[in-house]
Amino acid sequence: MKRVLVVTIMLSIGVSLLNGQAHPNLLLTKQGIEMIRKNLGRAPIYDKSFAVTKKEVDNQLGKPIDVPVPEDLAGGYTHEVHRKNYSTMEKAGLLYQVTKDVKYAEYIKTILHRYAELYPKLGLHPALNSYARGKIFWQCLNDANWLVSVAQAYDCVYDYLSKKDRALIEGKLLIPFANFISIENPQFFNRIHNHATWASAGVGMLGIVINNKELIDRALYGVPGIDTSTLRDNDGGLINPPGQDKLGFLAQIDGLLSPDGLYSEGAYYHRYGAYPFLVFAASLHNSQPKLKIFEYRDSVLIKSVFALLNQTTSNGEFYPLNDAQKGMSIHNSSLISAVNIAYLYGNKDARLLSIAELQNEVGLDQSGMVMATSMKKKQPWKTTSTYYIDGANGNLGAMGILRSPRGMNLVFKAGSHGMGHGHFDQLSYCYYINGNEVVQDYGMARFVNIEQKAGGVYLPENTTFAKQTIAHNTIVVNQKSQFEGKSDEADIYAPTLQYALLTDPTLQGICAMDTHAYPGVKIQRTMLLIDDKDWLNPVLIDVNKVATNKPTILDLPLYYQGHIMASTFDNAMSTTLSPLGKGSGYQHIWKEGVGTSSAKDNSFTWLDKGKFHTYIMNVMGNDTMIFGRLGANDPNFNLRHDPVLIQRRYVNSATTFCNIIETHGSYSPVTEKATNAHSDIISSTILVDNENYTAIKLSTKSSKNWLVLMDNKSFVEKQNHTLTIDKKLRTWTGPFAIQNF
Amino acid sequence: MKRVLVVTIMLSIGVSLLNGQAHPNLLLTKQGIEMIRKNLGRAPIYDKSFAVTKKEVDNQLGKPIDVPVPEDLAGGYTHEVHRKNYSTMEKAGLLYQVTKDVKYAEYIKTILHRYAELYPKLGLHPALNSYARGKIFWQCLNDANWLVSVAQAYDCVYDYLSKKDRALIEGKLLIPFANFISIENPQFFNRIHNHATWASAGVGMLGIVINNKELIDRALYGVPGIDTSTLRDNDGGLINPPGQDKLGFLAQIDGLLSPDGLYSEGAYYHRYGAYPFLVFAASLHNSQPKLKIFEYRDSVLIKSVFALLNQTTSNGEFYPLNDAQKGMSIHNSSLISAVNIAYLYGNKDARLLSIAELQNEVGLDQSGMVMATSMKKKQPWKTTSTYYIDGANGNLGAMGILRSPRGMNLVFKAGSHGMGHGHFDQLSYCYYINGNEVVQDYGMARFVNIEQKAGGVYLPENTTFAKQTIAHNTIVVNQKSQFEGKSDEADIYAPTLQYALLTDPTLQGICAMDTHAYPGVKIQRTMLLIDDKDWLNPVLIDVNKVATNKPTILDLPLYYQGHIMASTFDNAMSTTLSPLGKGSGYQHIWKEGVGTSSAKDNSFTWLDKGKFHTYIMNVMGNDTMIFGRLGANDPNFNLRHDPVLIQRRYVNSATTFCNIIETHGSYSPVTEKATNAHSDIISSTILVDNENYTAIKLSTKSSKNWLVLMDNKSFVEKQNHTLTIDKKLRTWTGPFAIQNF
Repeated sequence: MKRVLVVTIMLSIGVSLLNGQAHPNLLLTKQGIEMIRKNLGRAPIYDKSFAVTKKEVDNQLGKPIDVPVPEDLAGGYTHEVHRKNYSTMEKAGLLYQVTKDVKYAEYIKTILHRYAELYPKLGLHPALNSYARGKIFWQCLNDANWLVSVAQAYDCVYDYLSKKDRALIEGKLLIPFANFISIENPQFFNRIHNHATWASAGVGMLGIVINNKELIDRALYGVPGIDTSTLRDNDGGLINPPGQDKLGFLAQIDGLLSPDGLYSEGAYYHRYGAYPFLVFAASLHNSQPKLKIFEYRDSVLIKSVFALLNQTTSNGEFYPLNDAQKGMSIHNSSLISAVNIAYLYGNKDARLLSIAELQNEVGLDQSGMVMATSMKKKQPWKTTSTYYIDGANGNLGAMGILRSPRGMNLVFKAGSHGMGHGHFDQLSYCYYINGNEVVQDYGMARFVNIEQKAGGVYLPENTTFAKQTIAHNTIVVNQKSQFEGKSDEADIYAPTLQYALLTDPTLQGICAMDTHAYPGVKIQRTMLLIDDKDWLNPVLIDVNKVATNKPTILDLPLYYQGHIMASTFDNAMSTTLSPLGKGSGYQHIWKEGVGTSSAKDNSFTWLDKGKFHTYIMNVMGNDTMIFGRLGANDPNFNLRHDPVLIQRRYVNSATTFCNIIETHGSYSPVTEKATNAHSDIISSTILVDNENYTAIKLSTKSSKNWLVLMDNKSFVEKQNHTLTIDKKLRTWTGPFAIQNF
Repeated sequence: MKRVLVVTIMLSIGVSLLNGQAHPNLLLTKQGIEMIRKNLGRAPIYDKSFAVTKKEVDNQLGKPIDVPVPEDLAGGYTHEVHRKNYSTMEKAGLLYQVTKDVKYAEYIKTILHRYAELYPKLGLHPALNSYARGKIFWQCLNDANWLVSVAQAYDCVYDYLSKKDRALIEGKLLIPFANFISIENPQFFNRIHNHATWASAGVGMLGIVINNKELIDRALYGVPGIDTSTLRDNDGGLINPPGQDKLGFLAQIDGLLSPDGLYSEGAYYHRYGAYPFLVFAASLHNSQPKLKIFEYRDSVLIKSVFALLNQTTSNGEFYPLNDAQKGMSIHNSSLISAVNIAYLYGNKDARLLSIAELQNEVGLDQSGMVMATSMKKKQPWKTTSTYYIDGANGNLGAMGILRSPRGMNLVFKAGSHGMGHGHFDQLSYCYYINGNEVVQDYGMARFVNIEQKAGGVYLPENTTFAKQTIAHNTIVVNQKSQFEGKSDEADIYAPTLQYALLTDPTLQGICAMDTHAYPGVKIQRTMLLIDDKDWLNPVLIDVNKVATNKPTILDLPLYYQGHIMASTFDNAMSTTLSPLGKGSGYQHIWKEGVGTSSAKDNSFTWLDKGKFHTYIMNVMGNDTMIFGRLGANDPNFNLRHDPVLIQRRYVNSATTFCNIIETHGSYSPVTEKATNAHSDIISSTILVDNENYTAIKLSTKSSKNWLVLMDNKSFVEKQNHTLTIDKKLRTWTGPFAIQNF
């Protein structure tokens, strides 16, 4: 009975019947509401989400309405009240449609009148922090968030309001509001950037609700005839990178997502941008079906949700590449609707039902209800090893994700810079075991929405440290950041992905070459993740081949975490600490000591969260190991005082860094037992290293020795190679191979 | 059927029938074995523990026996093999008795012959690290561990072995072994110390098994006629503190446990010492019932188990006072038997069944089976607010534990020093919320059993930093440790507990005065834990009254954890870092900056694990706030690089430190919502402060202001006090009160 009901109703979802005149008609439709009402009480996860929302809104409705004159930054009183107001309006609209209880409609009506009274009196928000100051909030972005919610709330009570109410609310509040964040702020609206996606969604959704073609077109195609080519935002990024001639929502889909659905700014911002992308798209699907928005660009919007969900640790946390606050995860509310919409308007991929189960919440619109009534069909969600081609046209490198049977997870960045939120981190990586960081990416220097930390905005150290190359696990040339720290230039180039061979989970490899980040210097990085039963422990092999022909200082940082157990270096510890350098992020690193070694083989072991990790280094004669710690020149304690080990090498010509991370053993403070506290690999020797091939011998304690063979040049999967090593002919097929030695 | 069975059998447990001639006759008895065999398969937690043990031992029996010539320190090969050997023997003995499968007995027989062959050839272990070098291990302590296990294993196979086997094993191995760790090492055996408890247990249990009265008496009363009064152990502690004339196990019970069952060295070592205390006691109970060992000193052995279990965070981890590795918990295997024995031989306290359930394991002797068959009777275990009188005669202060409804947990140390494992930490505290550290005690500088860290022994920084007063949250006078860092003197004195009023969970107070740690300086510290519904957040009030009459520098450290959000100080951050001082632990602290303030009220907020904490400080004109970080003069990275905030005050006469910690709000990186990021208390003002009374006004944002009233002198619970403040007469009863202001 129940199943038949759902199917019948679903057939009609998404077909706009009344030329935009029916309400609601965005994410939520009239038919959707009917379907929801009929299934209410029969779909546990929906009912739970509904009950939580109802309780929250009812509680809020019991309090006096406050629409204060805007004053504060994020985290401050007026900011938080206005945030709460729009969120409550959106939810109250839904509750009104589902329950038909007019108290919800009355609330929205009353508060919209209050806003309609306040809004015309407002100038720009008093805080000067943003390149696009809002009126309700310190930045237009938050105003756009407000409009995305309020357009939905308004849609839900549209039929409830009198014509007079509507005329007043639209005339005094909503249309001026939409104009303000678009026509009056083209530097905000006419962008290919998540800010503009929010703005387009707000303006376009309002346009749909009030059947205003001009607003809809503005949302889809931008504000015409404005030159924003020289303007920059707060992050120092260009408002419009050169060559960008199309504007609006469709151009944002074109420009922000790669053909594989990778979002240029990184997963953290993708999570934030996914909501307006998907919610506006669903609204367009329902009201402007001819656009076929979900089929646009080979269904890239649906693909993007899958790409985003796969950019996660085994805890469901997003990789913190580019500007990203750590800990953000698939549990964020933005993702809930995105997953629901991707399910309903994608191919009803039953794996998404497992994500909804993890999220333990669905949206209260029809996409949420469809998921909730389909939960029994769920299939397991499994993140995969894969790579995503980057760049709008797929021509800006790629990001690789390698996962192994024993829980290792390598993320390799060789893609687009990421515009204003990009970091100078080409060829960097981060590395996890079962969701715990082994080698971290610092993330961003910002405490979002924490008022004490400069109102929650980006802190100066985000620019002076977190974005800089030295803040990442990639080679720094001559102590300067990639592209001299210029994001305009960084946005143009990307490394070349040489290969990504990820089909064998016990042996995966990825390789990319960068020739633009440092003029005159070519760096090719090859990373192999080995997690084979024949190996005692999972091993990451990291080979950086650097080509240069003049005196060059190369620094390779390792952002390990936890406590140092042992190192084979003679450490000269500093008796007083000075910053490691004067700029490019070096000014933020205290130099705790310098290690040197006359041996070629060196190792460095640390313990973190009960696991040992050993870094096995091939050291050249003049290499030094710098023991660094973050926190210098940080007067407001904005940085975490994390440790870093930097391998420094002075060269005049081509060189190769060969480093290995073995993750081994365990330690428990309860049993006080240490197992396998020493790595199995005891040395690595580069036997061959030329333009064509690199061959590395790994000697282990457990008696088997290994030979790692790498093709540095042809990268053809089926190609056979031969190489004589120690008078023995070695043959293999493809870009890399492991053999017994 | 089952229940009747259990009861019948249990009636006969603990009655020694055969004058020590029956085997087994230690923790495990002949009657116990019968009971176990009859209940096997009917007591899930026992059956699970049994299956785990059987699998482990069967696996070990499948491998070749190795009895290597001793060579390594802890964590090294020979150390770990010998550890595994004795542990397997003990378990195999149990399995033999329960299953009657002779393969277990054969294993023990074979390996004992191997040891009997090796032992006579051994000199002292080659490592020179211990004050009492062992033969099998680097220290006699581990040899004693071996004997405690092997005595049990031997007991289990005693009847299986031929007379000839026994004569050889006892003559070549066991008796010389027992003599070696007692007569030949009186500096190890004749102590009032956990080392000697292990030694007594090993020697005594062997004595019981082989019915050797001399060994039993030696265990109970020590090796007579040896002067060890001037000897010191590795930790620098005296082998026998002055005044100690009794020796042996009974004297250890007298000397190491306070009348309340508090163990002088701290919970970490108590956990380690609890096993030989309880296992030897159970063996004595079974074989020497006339001793009435469990009734000895008003049942202090049973009390001590309860005291230990209560010295835990809500995660079951022991407070890391004195030398203690963090993370050690009630899940440690030493505690399993201790809990079982305390259940069976104490009053069958049904709350202990909940501990066994948490441990998810029981011992395989009869005490474990009795618990396992009683699980249905379990009552909830709840840690409580309490204090434990310290010192053998109850005359060395106390330790207080305060717990509040919202999960706050204050541990206040005002007891005995703790001998060689003691820290110079009188009047220090640590503070938790729901098991997470708010203000930490550093614990010890040692990585137990991790070979890379000096073989797992105490690191030099344990003495030079972790034991020093500056490593603790207590006032340091003139940058020197208490008692000038001399533990002999520290062992003699303790603060005086003025009161501990812990009955009202919403308002608890504890107060102690120290007059010995610093000559000429008296410090009285009062801590009130307020967690009342009328208060927005839990608040800790910390008042240190310091009496001195000459120029004195006072440092009050706060070992906060996490990230600094804000401080009201003008921070002069250091551009290069130097150590804060030259000795007493100061040499290990980098001085990151100095904060000053002209305001009286100052605050310092940090964020850790999603909670905000604000330290509200009453600052005198010349106070400075030192932002410190551990890690200076630490060439081997033996210290955690944790932060500390030190309030420094220069005085010529009496002064009062008044500091408040409010724990407030929350932050989630998933929702990015910060709630109550600011403390409710905005200022604290000392209105009255004299010899008799201290009165503090707390102003809050949420409009209510509070008056904190403290009696500094009489401390009588029922006494009425009157005090005129701001022309208003205030009256209250008892040592402290909170009133509206």
